Amino acid sequence: MPHLHMEYTANLPGLNADLALIRLNNTLVGSGQFAAEFDIKSRAVKVETFKVGTALAERAFVHVKLALLSGRSPQIKKQLSESLLAVAQDLCEWPAGVEVQVCVEILDIDRESYTKTAIGH
Amino acid sequence: MPHLHMEYTANLPGLNADLALIRLNNTLVGSGQFAAEFDIKSRAVKVETFKVGTALAERAFVHVKLALLSGRSPQIKKQLSESLLAVAQDLCEWPAGVEVQVCVEILDIDRESYTKTAIGH
Amino acid sequence: MPHLHMEYTANLPGLNADLALIRLNNTLVGSGQFAAEFDIKSRAVKVETFKVGTALAERAFVHVKLALLSGRSPQIKKQLSESLLAVAQDLCEWPAGVEVQVCVEILDIDRESYTKTAIGH
Repeated sequence: MPHLHMEYTANLPGLNADLALIRLNNTLVGSGQFAAEFDIKSRAVKVETFKVGTALAERAFVHVKLALLSGRSPQIKKQLSESLLAVAQDLCEWPAGVEVQVCVEILDIDRESYTKTAIGH
Repeated sequence: MPHLHMEYTANLPGLNADLALIRLNNTLVGSGQFAAEFDIKSRAVKVETFKVGTALAERAFVHVKLALLSGRSPQIKKQLSESLLAVAQDLCEWPAGVEVQVCVEILDIDRESYTKTAIGH
Repeated sequence: MPHLHMEYTANLPGLNADLALIRLNNTLVGSGQFAAEFDIKSRAVKVETFKVGTALAERAFVHVKLALLSGRSPQIKKQLSESLLAVAQDLCEWPAGVEVQVCVEILDIDRESYTKTAIGH
């Protein structure tokens, strides 16, 4: 906890996913919501097969999902979402002529049944 | 919103994922539940490493997840699920001798903490 | 139902994902919680782009998510999580000098709107 997933469509060549995760993780650490930086586990996936809507226009998206152990207030979740969106919408020079949607979703992990172990830490 | 994810196992060579997303998106637009076709963001992922159950029979699956901003009624969700299933179960000629499971799951996105921006739109 | 997703970072060369899924599925069957082994649909994804925290140390993770039709008790979920964690933390010889986090998350699938069909079964 927390787990961050970033999906980005393959038609965003300027997006450096490694750098994006560093920036997103820094934002999470900077939020003060997480006791240990070590706990933040983030991954990025390039989406090769996608379709936005039904029109023929060229479109793209970046979707960030942050999963948190249940219990945080709606206000904290909203703040985290806005902080991540601020970073995500500035991740690269967006290509001209492409309609890009950038979204952030916060979801709960059921705290009671979450289990974890750390090896070699 | 909405976000659609389709996973399909790699042993379904007849399944055209690009075409599948077009058909699924058209179904969502046709449902009348979404104000703008532009909002529908869909992606497909071919699953290369999978295991269905424990038996040795050749098996496959297609799993469609539709994530909606919270607030829709159970009836609407059920209808959307059935409409997507009708499309998904007809996506290709299923290979002979393979047991295929096709599933549709509807889930909620927490509306209060969801943030989004559109660039170049 | 159930659906199991395993993500594992690309810096765990000893992890055999096919074998991992067999072991995880066997654990689920052994739990006695699922009427038919056929229902267990599992997949594994190697995560190539990831970042754990903000420090420079080499880190890795394995994240198992088990999605169940809603209705099971917190006790059952906790037990399933612990059983899967016991398998997951023993999936391979973990590489020396790498801090590995192994986590298991249990989540609900909305039962009312879940639809499914089986072909060729």
